[in-house]
Amino acid sequence: MRDVRMRGFAERADVEEVSDFLAGTVSELPSEPVGVAVCAGRVLARDVASEVDVPSFRRSAMDGYAVRGEDTFGAAPNDPLALALLGESMPGRPFEGRVTPGSAVRIMTGAPVPDGADAVVMAEVCEEGDASVAVRDAVAPHKNVGAPGEDIRNGDVVLRAGRRLRPQDAGLLASIGVADVPCVGRPRVRIIVTGDELLPPGSRPSGAHIVDSNSLVLEALARRDGAAEVLTERLPDREDAIRAALRDAPAEVVLVSGGSSVGREDHAPRLVSELGRLDFHGVAMRPSSPAGVGRLPALTEGGPERFAFLLPGNPVSCLCAYEFFAGPSVRALGGRSREWPHRRATLPLARKISSAIGRVDYVRVAIESGRVVPIATAGASILSSTVRAAGAVIVPRGREGMPEGETVEVLLYDEAPA
Amino acid sequence: MRDVRMRGFAERADVEEVSDFLAGTVSELPSEPVGVAVCAGRVLARDVASEVDVPSFRRSAMDGYAVRGEDTFGAAPNDPLALALLGESMPGRPFEGRVTPGSAVRIMTGAPVPDGADAVVMAEVCEEGDASVAVRDAVAPHKNVGAPGEDIRNGDVVLRAGRRLRPQDAGLLASIGVADVPCVGRPRVRIIVTGDELLPPGSRPSGAHIVDSNSLVLEALARRDGAAEVLTERLPDREDAIRAALRDAPAEVVLVSGGSSVGREDHAPRLVSELGRLDFHGVAMRPSSPAGVGRLPALTEGGPERFAFLLPGNPVSCLCAYEFFAGPSVRALGGRSREWPHRRATLPLARKISSAIGRVDYVRVAIESGRVVPIATAGASILSSTVRAAGAVIVPRGREGMPEGETVEVLLYDEAPA
Repeated sequence: MRDVRMRGFAERADVEEVSDFLAGTVSELPSEPVGVAVCAGRVLARDVASEVDVPSFRRSAMDGYAVRGEDTFGAAPNDPLALALLGESMPGRPFEGRVTPGSAVRIMTGAPVPDGADAVVMAEVCEEGDASVAVRDAVAPHKNVGAPGEDIRNGDVVLRAGRRLRPQDAGLLASIGVADVPCVGRPRVRIIVTGDELLPPGSRPSGAHIVDSNSLVLEALARRDGAAEVLTERLPDREDAIRAALRDAPAEVVLVSGGSSVGREDHAPRLVSELGRLDFHGVAMRPSSPAGVGRLPALTEGGPERFAFLLPGNPVSCLCAYEFFAGPSVRALGGRSREWPHRRATLPLARKISSAIGRVDYVRVAIESGRVVPIATAGASILSSTVRAAGAVIVPRGREGMPEGETVEVLLYDEAPA
Repeated sequence: MRDVRMRGFAERADVEEVSDFLAGTVSELPSEPVGVAVCAGRVLARDVASEVDVPSFRRSAMDGYAVRGEDTFGAAPNDPLALALLGESMPGRPFEGRVTPGSAVRIMTGAPVPDGADAVVMAEVCEEGDASVAVRDAVAPHKNVGAPGEDIRNGDVVLRAGRRLRPQDAGLLASIGVADVPCVGRPRVRIIVTGDELLPPGSRPSGAHIVDSNSLVLEALARRDGAAEVLTERLPDREDAIRAALRDAPAEVVLVSGGSSVGREDHAPRLVSELGRLDFHGVAMRPSSPAGVGRLPALTEGGPERFAFLLPGNPVSCLCAYEFFAGPSVRALGGRSREWPHRRATLPLARKISSAIGRVDYVRVAIESGRVVPIATAGASILSSTVRAAGAVIVPRGREGMPEGETVEVLLYDEAPA
């Protein structure tokens, strides 16, 4: 790999080529057991089958009285039938006896239906006396009695590998007695931010010194994409410091912000190449053309290879290169989909978008009166363009642009509907 | 409020009535300062204006050489012009001198453009010698020089109150030197799960004992909705224990799972009424008709009122009552939208849905071949119905149901597109 510093890129890879490489190289991390109480949002590593029936007993679906249905036949509001009250069955404290003809047992929703009873008559149509209950409506056998296994049967596969666990999935796994859930591991992400001009977030910009914003954007995006742990290291533009940080980063994904291009102080590409392999450097896209992708050796014998993403320091380029290359990889390592995670809107363009054949463009757009408006002052250094924008439109490599009126898909920046 | 235990509800409130009550009663928590490094995802409590220009200096948009544009006029690939190289301007380490006629300063992207220079010629068209640089292309004045304030101007309102902060918003706030971001507070949520039959998650169900699944579902939903802290307390069906838990819960939102209905052991409604006020109990909906909403007194003089949500113990009812009443309140307390946070799909019904006028139904549905299929075995106790379902369809109060073929909106359970 030739040194491109102060020379420029001889040729740039296509976005698709880089994405295909990553799709073929980055795969799911090994599975790990995750406590059922914290598994929601994680990705299931293998199918889970139930080893129990839910419920495991005949379960009352109502508050009322467990009876033999036939004992209530003929009961009516003006013609109640009296049944002897034998006791009660509560959730967790079942009635241990048997419901014999002409008798009833008070029962609560979720409690086991006692032997002998085949129905539950609801409380609202009954009137309890001292040792009896007056039933004012007939109930058919089996009514309001949940059968064992009606929710889940022993042996049923309840959830499939690859599922991103919903809140209710976590509940279901708890209800079948799972303590540890086999989930796909989650990548650790190390962000290395380089630049002598950078002050840490929370500082005030001063003179030639600006505040590092890329680390915050990258941290939030990596968390969105399911990273286990996200740590940022801020370094001066010194080769030795950057080399050590790359060599030792205890993370499956290393994001290098800044120093990725062809400037004098752009050490990162050469260092990745020296320590491991720089698979791509320079991509036919706008912004983010100086982006790069490489691999760093495992930290331990037989450990996982580490992926390095070189993200240009310009804030929009940084965000864009993350979204195209690093984001899908972080998600894929954790078992999630590589696809854009954004909500979408499909709307017509209010103004044309210009691009160039052979290059992918990431265009920030506003949505005004149901139409998509490309944001004009949208250089790679203008972070506020991604703040003002509602989302982004991708112009594919094969197109010179998109005409006014064309219906386009917008990747929306906001995660939830308003 | 009369004691409904073993009697049933005399009348039920409409869903709309309860929602309107909550919309009028639950409001945003006071704002709190949040470190800029962790503000992504939070809701901004007030407008933020910039007190600086970004950039605050003339910034190079390229790696190359800072020049007086006119000095390069006439330069061409076969006819380079030589300029004297005076030094370099690096990000954070500007060139302190002045670019005089016929001279240039090596400059990196993001570095301050020295006085005297009005353009940056890109590195790729230059060749550096010992004390000079050969320029092979002309550059117009102002080219590749970012003006002070081109990203953000001092005084600009950069983000408005109510905004849920995106990753790039956090970056923007850092770049203008904000250390603490004024965000809407987030509610603490206390989950009180009652039931003698319940074992903690991670246990194996046994005999009449089942595993509590509702706490896990509620914890994950409350986190989705932006709760600051979610803690679960599991209690036996004992009045004194439940009273103490309600009275002392250090949370703006108290969710009571189980014990909300008309059974003997359903203490929660009466206790909320005794300790504070039970505004609603019994709602015309299916499932979740025994749901209730009330208020508990502030823990400290002048502190915030606490909201209590009585959620039926049946797992689907619990989820449904959370989604209709508690979820919007958790979100609203934290400054988020009360609206359903789900992604939507709009598709035709493959089979009719039956309901009843005067009642709102929450129907679990699958999506098969682009059509919406109501799930048949979908009693309130069947948690697996919400696992098999792709989402839910709401049948409004004024309708008897929805015919086959009608286009309906599905609230999708999965958070991200596949």
